Amino acid sequence: MYLHGGDVCGREGILDFSANINFLGMPAAVRAAAIRGVEEAEVYPQAFNSGLEEKIAEKYALKPHDVVCGNGAAEIIFAFFGAVRARKALVVEPTFCEYERALTGGADGCELVHHTLTEKNGFELGIDILDKITDDIGVVVICNPNNPTGVVYDKGVLLKILERCESVGAWLFVDESFIELTMRYKSGGLFDVMNNGSYDKLFVLRSFTKLYAMAGLRLGFGVCVNRGFMERIRRALQPWNISLPAQYAGIAALEEDEFAGRSRVAVAAEREYMLGKLGEIVRVCDGAANFLLFYVWNDVLDDNGRGHLYNQCLERGILIRDCSNFYGLGCGWYRVAVRCREDNERLIRVLGELI
Amino acid sequence: MYLHGGDVCGREGILDFSANINFLGMPAAVRAAAIRGVEEAEVYPQAFNSGLEEKIAEKYALKPHDVVCGNGAAEIIFAFFGAVRARKALVVEPTFCEYERALTGGADGCELVHHTLTEKNGFELGIDILDKITDDIGVVVICNPNNPTGVVYDKGVLLKILERCESVGAWLFVDESFIELTMRYKSGGLFDVMNNGSYDKLFVLRSFTKLYAMAGLRLGFGVCVNRGFMERIRRALQPWNISLPAQYAGIAALEEDEFAGRSRVAVAAEREYMLGKLGEIVRVCDGAANFLLFYVWNDVLDDNGRGHLYNQCLERGILIRDCSNFYGLGCGWYRVAVRCREDNERLIRVLGELI
Repeated sequence: MYLHGGDVCGREGILDFSANINFLGMPAAVRAAAIRGVEEAEVYPQAFNSGLEEKIAEKYALKPHDVVCGNGAAEIIFAFFGAVRARKALVVEPTFCEYERALTGGADGCELVHHTLTEKNGFELGIDILDKITDDIGVVVICNPNNPTGVVYDKGVLLKILERCESVGAWLFVDESFIELTMRYKSGGLFDVMNNGSYDKLFVLRSFTKLYAMAGLRLGFGVCVNRGFMERIRRALQPWNISLPAQYAGIAALEEDEFAGRSRVAVAAEREYMLGKLGEIVRVCDGAANFLLFYVWNDVLDDNGRGHLYNQCLERGILIRDCSNFYGLGCGWYRVAVRCREDNERLIRVLGELI
Repeated sequence: MYLHGGDVCGREGILDFSANINFLGMPAAVRAAAIRGVEEAEVYPQAFNSGLEEKIAEKYALKPHDVVCGNGAAEIIFAFFGAVRARKALVVEPTFCEYERALTGGADGCELVHHTLTEKNGFELGIDILDKITDDIGVVVICNPNNPTGVVYDKGVLLKILERCESVGAWLFVDESFIELTMRYKSGGLFDVMNNGSYDKLFVLRSFTKLYAMAGLRLGFGVCVNRGFMERIRRALQPWNISLPAQYAGIAALEEDEFAGRSRVAVAAEREYMLGKLGEIVRVCDGAANFLLFYVWNDVLDDNGRGHLYNQCLERGILIRDCSNFYGLGCGWYRVAVRCREDNERLIRVLGELI
């Protein structure tokens, strides 16, 4: 069974609310750069992407050594957990399932401990997690803002978790793939902590694919100040992991500050609109990202494990993300992307008719 | 220090003989498909690339389960050795250094045993290797045709090695990345063995980047009939490892039989020309691929480990591959790609003046 949203292949004309891509689409300059990458693709891309990593470091006031690019953030997830090889991991749930795939896919196996957030607490992360960060935990895994809830966690709590991880010798892995599409893109993230501290076991993940709508080109990066560890990750990656179109697109995207700002404003406005409208018909989680999680009563799964609402929406040409396979959620939970007003109105109308 | 050829970034106007790319360039239909991939790249590529793997399987009369696509053949090298995790490996040298990087990059380490071929024997692989395939060998690594010698190994010897590997429980990894640019693209490879046998520990690697000149797009694939093992490799890869431009380009490339045939004829003709001309000025290895290895007397390395001839060629606008860092070669060995007649003439002229 397919585990993710965005599975639109072979579905012409479908309106995709299942993948969390910036609805403003790919900036023209990014697309032009990617096409230039194709034009020049008879040669190998620059090995180890040093040019791109330097430019990323410059933009975020990081050091080039501290940045490692991946063929999408997903490659870095696998490279990170492959290099850490934790025997026991604490994962804040419900969340993106690729962490679990990467943690448990190795030959050694890895025991998973789940810290499951609840709707009752608005899926917020509290300091009660600290008691679970024991000496035997190799890595704590947090997605911020969290996929699928959209919640941006309290920075104070994250810092307490970081201190606790450092004190017990555990890694803290924070996936900030969606943070640049939120209004807390600066203060909410941990780059300021990376810049000012010397946290040897903090690893932060970022993505180009969501903000710049370049999911098909694949580009993400990890940041960590631990030189020895970053060397280990690099040794586990091929030299040419970033295609030429992705390298060029990434370099162009770094210039798109105006687009990024405009995107955040547009996403925030549409999210507020959807929060209001969705709130009239379903229980919706108060997220801050470019997607929203909601719950419907009396939903049932079909024989393929798909929810009734998912199937009904699909019949009406709309793909939504059935979240019943997320740990800690279950039947009745759905995630929808924030799109443009016209699309959002169509979704709301259809959901209103169905629920 | 950079380990490979093709490092042409920031070197405008250089004539690159260091990367082994088909000199006919990327077919127009492949480039158009890749650009279509960029146009549609706002969505995620199809996860697990099932469409592409099915088409590859169909073309080579393999089963779709037996094919795994990679972000370039290089990704599969790392995924394969990461999944095998051999404690001891036998590597036929001199050869491509990424096998060693992938073998020794893991946390467990891996002991390398080298089987070093010699110029005296024309860098041919003989049955004397069989004695080295002992019970403690986890994997035997062979590149065929070999990079950098260009030698296509005797099929009978390869089959004896395969039988020996199966009997001691060792993996046989054969990198056939360049075989489709040789005249022995069918009989020389091991796909017929894969199709007819049930060799559980044979893994064959192929590449799209050389034949279709799409190095910057990244696409390769591994073939193995061991279902459990292939499942393990897939679990170690992210779901979206092939970008949309690479998926589309790959599907288009599979239709390019006429181009592939024309490429082999052109490469063979130019290689014969170069063999003759180079043979008049240096000792050249009688390779069958789209590159040639040669040796010059009295070469010296500079402080950066670059050979004198390499530097002299660079001053004249030609990049050749200094092979002094290949295990089993050393100072004085160089590799040059087979290019079009005009380029080859220029290379021969320059080398004639320098040597």
